[in-house]
Amino acid sequence: MLFKVPRGTQDILPSETWKWQQVESIIKHVSDAFRYKEIRTPIFEQTELFQRLVGETTDVVQKEMYTFTDKGNRSMTLRPEGTAPVVRSFVENKMFGIPDQPVKLFYVGPMFRYERQQAGRYRQFVQFGAEAIGSADPAIDAEVIALAMNVYQRAGLTDLKLVLNSLGDTECRKAHKDALIAHFTPHIDEFCSDCKSRLDMNPLRILDCKVDSGNPLIATAPSLPNYLNEDSAAYFEQVKSYLDDLNISYVVDANLVRGLDYYNHTAFEIMSTSKGFGAITTLCGGGRYNGLAEDIGGPSAPGIGFAMSIERLLLAMNAEGKSFDEEPNLEVYIVTLGDDAKRPGFKLLNELRKSGIRSDMDYMDRKMKGQMKSADRLNAEIVVVIGEDEVAEDVAMVRNMSDGTQEKIATSELVGKITSSLKR
Amino acid sequence: MLFKVPRGTQDILPSETWKWQQVESIIKHVSDAFRYKEIRTPIFEQTELFQRLVGETTDVVQKEMYTFTDKGNRSMTLRPEGTAPVVRSFVENKMFGIPDQPVKLFYVGPMFRYERQQAGRYRQFVQFGAEAIGSADPAIDAEVIALAMNVYQRAGLTDLKLVLNSLGDTECRKAHKDALIAHFTPHIDEFCSDCKSRLDMNPLRILDCKVDSGNPLIATAPSLPNYLNEDSAAYFEQVKSYLDDLNISYVVDANLVRGLDYYNHTAFEIMSTSKGFGAITTLCGGGRYNGLAEDIGGPSAPGIGFAMSIERLLLAMNAEGKSFDEEPNLEVYIVTLGDDAKRPGFKLLNELRKSGIRSDMDYMDRKMKGQMKSADRLNAEIVVVIGEDEVAEDVAMVRNMSDGTQEKIATSELVGKITSSLKR
Repeated sequence: MLFKVPRGTQDILPSETWKWQQVESIIKHVSDAFRYKEIRTPIFEQTELFQRLVGETTDVVQKEMYTFTDKGNRSMTLRPEGTAPVVRSFVENKMFGIPDQPVKLFYVGPMFRYERQQAGRYRQFVQFGAEAIGSADPAIDAEVIALAMNVYQRAGLTDLKLVLNSLGDTECRKAHKDALIAHFTPHIDEFCSDCKSRLDMNPLRILDCKVDSGNPLIATAPSLPNYLNEDSAAYFEQVKSYLDDLNISYVVDANLVRGLDYYNHTAFEIMSTSKGFGAITTLCGGGRYNGLAEDIGGPSAPGIGFAMSIERLLLAMNAEGKSFDEEPNLEVYIVTLGDDAKRPGFKLLNELRKSGIRSDMDYMDRKMKGQMKSADRLNAEIVVVIGEDEVAEDVAMVRNMSDGTQEKIATSELVGKITSSLKR
Repeated sequence: MLFKVPRGTQDILPSETWKWQQVESIIKHVSDAFRYKEIRTPIFEQTELFQRLVGETTDVVQKEMYTFTDKGNRSMTLRPEGTAPVVRSFVENKMFGIPDQPVKLFYVGPMFRYERQQAGRYRQFVQFGAEAIGSADPAIDAEVIALAMNVYQRAGLTDLKLVLNSLGDTECRKAHKDALIAHFTPHIDEFCSDCKSRLDMNPLRILDCKVDSGNPLIATAPSLPNYLNEDSAAYFEQVKSYLDDLNISYVVDANLVRGLDYYNHTAFEIMSTSKGFGAITTLCGGGRYNGLAEDIGGPSAPGIGFAMSIERLLLAMNAEGKSFDEEPNLEVYIVTLGDDAKRPGFKLLNELRKSGIRSDMDYMDRKMKGQMKSADRLNAEIVVVIGEDEVAEDVAMVRNMSDGTQEKIATSELVGKITSSLKR
């Protein structure tokens, strides 16, 4: 084989796209009920957008971005995540001026990270994400979480765990950062070079370093909840009581920090607890990002959002044994015998299709037997047979494949009679 | 503003995505009727795939590709078109072994070409494409054209022109190429440097050179139809008679050559003839590409397909004054007064949404007047008012906004009564 799909990417073939279409339909339906509207941003953005918003010291920016120089000599990056582009669009298009705040947006599209390959992890993967920008009401944190949970529930998932934490506001994060630096500095030589360089800039990233995860100093590191100030703690309490009101259960995990720099206050992940599920159990991650719009020159517009991988949602459905609706079968297959029959058959086919009837015929010059086999394989509801006799009489033989009955019908009446006899 | 959408790309905002969703729904519906199934290939492919299949001497490959080196030191290119990836996937996934040939596939997704900007032309643009691979029946050429026309017709377009040509088979193309070389060689100094380098490799490309389009030698160049051999001419006649049978009108244009190297036999374009339309009138282009699967090491699998720009389809709808269905309005807006009312309001909201009812409430801590304004702006069908009295009585006031009637309903009955009173 000369060419293969690029490493870490995949073709989604027709047997699978049917499942994707159904998941996307759930996403649209749920987003619609929650009044989240679709936005589509470009596949690539200026590299600096991600450097600034996702964070210079994150693994995503340091190691995983697909960055290239375009023919105009600008550095561009295939988007590794969807929040930075949406916030860029929010500011650029002055959405803060829309009367009904917060602005609620969702997206579904491919993201790109050059990561080590493993089950459920692709270098091109598709995320559904939702963002509510412009409100600092703790109820909206609960709304966003409820939106994600609702999508999973519609997909039939039950083995779910919501993990929650508060990262606090700027003041808390500063206090916690100082404590982390003090904690790690005396022993920083035991850590990897990435962690060394992170120490002053962003010691929080040491906590989710993949290399040093076994170092005991990670477990004994100052815990964020101990540094929450009164406002942040009160905010977190309100988020939790709204979740209680909605009967959405959760566990609080003080070690949940997320891998992107822009989060503050509420951070959350939804994991699959299904036994059949692989090593990576996180289905969805999100959090609050107050200050992000200001960081790129916009006005104050506190936001919260999440992103979930569609690939992992499908894996979780598979692990829980959830099935999809059956794909609709073919409604009509037209069998023609001889050259004279093909042309009226082809005309009929086009008329049926124009009426929205799922129909097909042979394009491989096969004999009747081969054509009937196709009709069977495609599970056609009705087979129309046109031979020399039928052409001469200006009729067609219409056979109902479920009960085997057949009827001779005049050409002019075919579309109408076929339409009315279909199950649909 | 610190960050803008990259030059030549665009954000599709919620007011527009609604239109895109509708066009995509038409595409899915029509493709379904024609038994074309969706395939999704990655955003990028090995650069060599496009070099080999689209053609080294084409403008697309020479000037317009977004090519980059990934972290594994492989040359990758953001797909400039959809046929090469689909044929790559057809061969790699051995789709030639599927019993029901031809394999019929469609895709909708972004493509990337670094071109000069002008109205209706973007560097990232979205194409709907269809491919039928595995049959050399001229009826399938007509089917593919009918599929494209059907999509336009469902979108309400009438000002359309189908332009058709035959590029012949390998033998005809060789004879025509030799004639072109003989024609241009004595005068090649009058042409641009691109044309000079194309002369021996691919003189056909001189005919659609943007720089030399005014040179009189282009108009007097040997015409392809004069070089069609008997088989190719007969094939073209059959395609035309199938189109006649389907009442699809067309004009034959001997100068239609398409900008990609892989075409042979049938080539076509669909143009908008609407007065309000811009300079670029081509909405859709396609053709036959027998031999393409062999070119990348696959078996013989003659194919035909097209690609149409969604951006231009929307421009054409605009030019012809076609409108879209109105976006569904909000069904329920919940107005709450005071802190005690917010929590039961939020619970009700979540219940309504879980039932698929499009609903929302205030997250900006606004007074009743502001909340009612939102309900108005969002054109809510029903407004639910919950104040201190209602909380005390465990009820809510439900107001029908179209007739102004209102009713006090017990909390436990709210979802049921609201659901049954919605228009839907």
